[in-house]
Amino acid sequence: MRNGNNDTELGARLSALRAEIARENLAGFVVPRADEHLGEYVPAAAERLAWISGFTGSAGLAVVLADRAALFTDGRYQLQAAAELDPMHWTLLHSIEQPAFAWLAAIAGAGPRIGYDPWLISEDQLARARTAGLDMVPLAANPIDRLWADRPAAPASHIVAHPLAHSGLDSATKRAEIAATLVAAKTDAAVITDPASLAWLFNIRAGDIPYTPVPLGFALIRADASASLFIDPARIPEPVRAGLGATVSIAPRDALPDALAALAGKTVRVDPAGSPAWFAQTLRAAGATVVDGPDPCLLPKACKNAVEQEGARRAHLRDAAPLCRFLAWLAREAPSGRIDEIGAASHLLDLRCELPEFHGESFNAISGAGPNGAIIHYRVSAASNRPLKPNEVYLIDSGAQFADGTTDVTRTIWTGPDPAPAELRDRFTRVLRGHIAIALLIFPDGVAGPHIDTLARAPLWQVGLDYDHGTGHGVGSYLSVHEGPAGISRAAKPIKLAPGMILSNEPGYYLPGAYGIRLENLLLVQPAPEHSAGKPFLRFETLTLAPFDRALIDTTQLTRAERAWVNAYHARVLAEVGPALAGSDAAWLQAACAPLD
Amino acid sequence: MRNGNNDTELGARLSALRAEIARENLAGFVVPRADEHLGEYVPAAAERLAWISGFTGSAGLAVVLADRAALFTDGRYQLQAAAELDPMHWTLLHSIEQPAFAWLAAIAGAGPRIGYDPWLISEDQLARARTAGLDMVPLAANPIDRLWADRPAAPASHIVAHPLAHSGLDSATKRAEIAATLVAAKTDAAVITDPASLAWLFNIRAGDIPYTPVPLGFALIRADASASLFIDPARIPEPVRAGLGATVSIAPRDALPDALAALAGKTVRVDPAGSPAWFAQTLRAAGATVVDGPDPCLLPKACKNAVEQEGARRAHLRDAAPLCRFLAWLAREAPSGRIDEIGAASHLLDLRCELPEFHGESFNAISGAGPNGAIIHYRVSAASNRPLKPNEVYLIDSGAQFADGTTDVTRTIWTGPDPAPAELRDRFTRVLRGHIAIALLIFPDGVAGPHIDTLARAPLWQVGLDYDHGTGHGVGSYLSVHEGPAGISRAAKPIKLAPGMILSNEPGYYLPGAYGIRLENLLLVQPAPEHSAGKPFLRFETLTLAPFDRALIDTTQLTRAERAWVNAYHARVLAEVGPALAGSDAAWLQAACAPLD
Repeated sequence: MRNGNNDTELGARLSALRAEIARENLAGFVVPRADEHLGEYVPAAAERLAWISGFTGSAGLAVVLADRAALFTDGRYQLQAAAELDPMHWTLLHSIEQPAFAWLAAIAGAGPRIGYDPWLISEDQLARARTAGLDMVPLAANPIDRLWADRPAAPASHIVAHPLAHSGLDSATKRAEIAATLVAAKTDAAVITDPASLAWLFNIRAGDIPYTPVPLGFALIRADASASLFIDPARIPEPVRAGLGATVSIAPRDALPDALAALAGKTVRVDPAGSPAWFAQTLRAAGATVVDGPDPCLLPKACKNAVEQEGARRAHLRDAAPLCRFLAWLAREAPSGRIDEIGAASHLLDLRCELPEFHGESFNAISGAGPNGAIIHYRVSAASNRPLKPNEVYLIDSGAQFADGTTDVTRTIWTGPDPAPAELRDRFTRVLRGHIAIALLIFPDGVAGPHIDTLARAPLWQVGLDYDHGTGHGVGSYLSVHEGPAGISRAAKPIKLAPGMILSNEPGYYLPGAYGIRLENLLLVQPAPEHSAGKPFLRFETLTLAPFDRALIDTTQLTRAERAWVNAYHARVLAEVGPALAGSDAAWLQAACAPLD
Repeated sequence: MRNGNNDTELGARLSALRAEIARENLAGFVVPRADEHLGEYVPAAAERLAWISGFTGSAGLAVVLADRAALFTDGRYQLQAAAELDPMHWTLLHSIEQPAFAWLAAIAGAGPRIGYDPWLISEDQLARARTAGLDMVPLAANPIDRLWADRPAAPASHIVAHPLAHSGLDSATKRAEIAATLVAAKTDAAVITDPASLAWLFNIRAGDIPYTPVPLGFALIRADASASLFIDPARIPEPVRAGLGATVSIAPRDALPDALAALAGKTVRVDPAGSPAWFAQTLRAAGATVVDGPDPCLLPKACKNAVEQEGARRAHLRDAAPLCRFLAWLAREAPSGRIDEIGAASHLLDLRCELPEFHGESFNAISGAGPNGAIIHYRVSAASNRPLKPNEVYLIDSGAQFADGTTDVTRTIWTGPDPAPAELRDRFTRVLRGHIAIALLIFPDGVAGPHIDTLARAPLWQVGLDYDHGTGHGVGSYLSVHEGPAGISRAAKPIKLAPGMILSNEPGYYLPGAYGIRLENLLLVQPAPEHSAGKPFLRFETLTLAPFDRALIDTTQLTRAERAWVNAYHARVLAEVGPALAGSDAAWLQAACAPLD
């Protein structure tokens, strides 16, 4: 929320930044909402965009010129940004309809000198800026950091070992595997800047950022399987350090420039999309050859080993109990109209907190009643909080972190008590049929996410409807709930689906102003040996266990195969989750999992 | 077939070519099966690969070194090549398993000088050769042409106007449209080397190569909408020349080098995949800037206008009568075992020839009985000819050229008289369900072929089966039966499906040694305004009209929607084609189109 004091304060910050920009002889400066790992969540110390603009959304880019300042963000954040920005100082623009670099090139004249912090922007983004005609000038220090007097300290949460019982593979074996891929690619070393890759490679976890249990740091891995971890050495507990052995050196982040300089003459892989441009720039300046290539941990991290797969099954079974207790509670309480969105999300969190293994949510839960459910990235606030009214749709998308696995599940509920309208049941059933088409799919080796996305949409397409998000994203193992490189989406890279990958299956339908439907289970890619007589085939194992709301299923629309899938899935939910429930919760589950009429 | 005389003759040719290679100071010379248009069919004058090697297949590449000669071709042609090549002189290799350039780089040592004819290889192919480490040396003249004493003359068939009643758009309008795209791309001119693009752009047709009614020639189109057509001016009838107007110059092919030289300082688009490298090389040498880009005619040619769409409907209805008469004849005669593959294909051709509008086949028909049907690119020969036995599967894939449209249709028939086995009916029905999934699909603007291919395969995948070809290819309008740029295949470029595109829908299943199943209709992409309330949606209109063999359908496997599609399609076939049939043919169609049990 804006107020007079903040306006004054924010105006002063903008003036100070403009003085810095002038001092550097620049036409402008870009401030992305990013930290030095270019990930989804950033620590408070990296909230430079909020500090300069007041905008607190999770995606955006500010451009500050001598006489103008503009903030670019996507459709999700237009309303929030309009409320948070001071229109006296800021122009709000839509980042898709009016991309920042093109806008800047158009208003700033020929080849304007635009400053940037090379720690906060990727080589790919820089290339796009240059293609747009901008003269991009790296700054040795971020001017905001000089101005931000009370900037929070960098996070330094407790780092713990991720034990072999959960990781399934020790760090030395992982490093040997990565080193072999570097040798095969004739590359001497690779830069690791993704904290999830760091956590996976060294089998460590921490709490530096919300929801994703990772430490913020950097690493180098070399073709001889030795590695350097750049993180405050004091943060690494002695047993972790001892476990990593002599071939892993641990040094503070300040040691990075010298470590890169030591790679003069070597060939070093840097991810041009995922790593800050600073790395490639520093390596090139040091005389190393930079090879563009994906973070070498991405693919092995995505393909969970047998121990991680077993952990994922345990985590999902464990998480199913509070989730089903929540759904049972909702069925009892929702028709009364006494629950609101915040209360519902809190109750689910409370139930999860009863689990001793619960390490926190895997993301900020989406709890949307009625029209709020139609806002795909809705996050309830005190201002938007809405009661769950009788006879409406409620959408709850939430997940948990456990040491043995990460969950992410969405269910869509009819609050009742009356029967749901026919059109709503038609839409829900089309989404469910799309979900089932993915869940039932058997497919040959070589098929990638972009090839199967259509199966989830076809029932909606048949009546001219669609949903404006991907069908599925990768999910980590006690890591990020959004994990690459594979995804089920036409826009995803055609990374072939491989055994051990965990992907969400979450088709939806959103009627603005009315309701949102999304049905999400996590799937584990498995070999399908019984179908691999000719060539290798794969299938999906459904990990998530919770019933779909029978009140919203139009059984007349289901084929025999679809009906059989629902009944088999519900029977499995009852058999596996039932023993963890008692009393009215157990009775509810029994009824919720009964065979379809 | 090999024989002593040919061996001697072919050996002498190889020796003579080696002398030329030595004279040019080369390590070797590559001979692709290609003409100067890099298309599917080549005239006899371009059969250099057959002249040097004896191999007559439609895809292959020979590499001749001082002491070795190797022929690379794909799985389709391994048996044929083994029979045609003299093993004393030639090594036969699989072009996919052992790519020619990598093989050459491995055996010929570091940076071997390999000669090539820049008229017979694309820039993309050259780049791959160079990436493999070869020193590719363009030759000013093809040494085979110097040696080939009785080389046939270049084709010079009769060129005719493709009238407005069929083209729907005059050449000047087409040229203005292409010129506008060049202006938008800041390009001064584009090179046209695809004869189908030439035929489309200038509204002309001819018979220079089999099956595709095009003249072989080249063109330049400029951003001012003027064009130069490089083809023997004597071949252009005066009315055609007059119709093209003053902004189209016609010159012999010899004028090409000067015309390209005149583009010095200009920016010229050349298709790096579809055009011979000679063009880009000559333009660069002349001081032009070459811009890689697709042939600008590809997309507008693929999107048939309303007149072409109406022509396609007429052509398909016309072609359906001989096809259905053929299927009726087959139903009467096949159980006797007196028909063979050649006789069946001839009978179908005879029936098509009765149509006054018939201009010939759109490709060499595939007529395969029993195990021959499992050979995807089977072409019957006197040696392979096989009777259609009772109680087996027969596959017939054929098409026709009419001035108003090109057809391509495949049906798979049970010869009877006994009922078909259950497993065969299961496979046929899975293929049919895949076909129906594509035919029934409604999809939003932006969806491309690679996104929908899976729908056609999912029923087969479900039991671990698949087919080793794309689901669909583009089809021209009285042009090539294989037309880019869109296709329904995971390997196809993600060119979005656009109204007016004609694509085949031809899933299949092949059990080697037993039978082949393929079910092919042509589809026309149409807007689906009734489903476009939110955003534009598209659908397919099925053009082909012929029943699917009821004897092979397992009706218990069909969903209600699939059964309804078959019944509606068959009812349409009966209503539209029935009036063109008489007597026992009409009675057969009536029964073949009856509703499913």
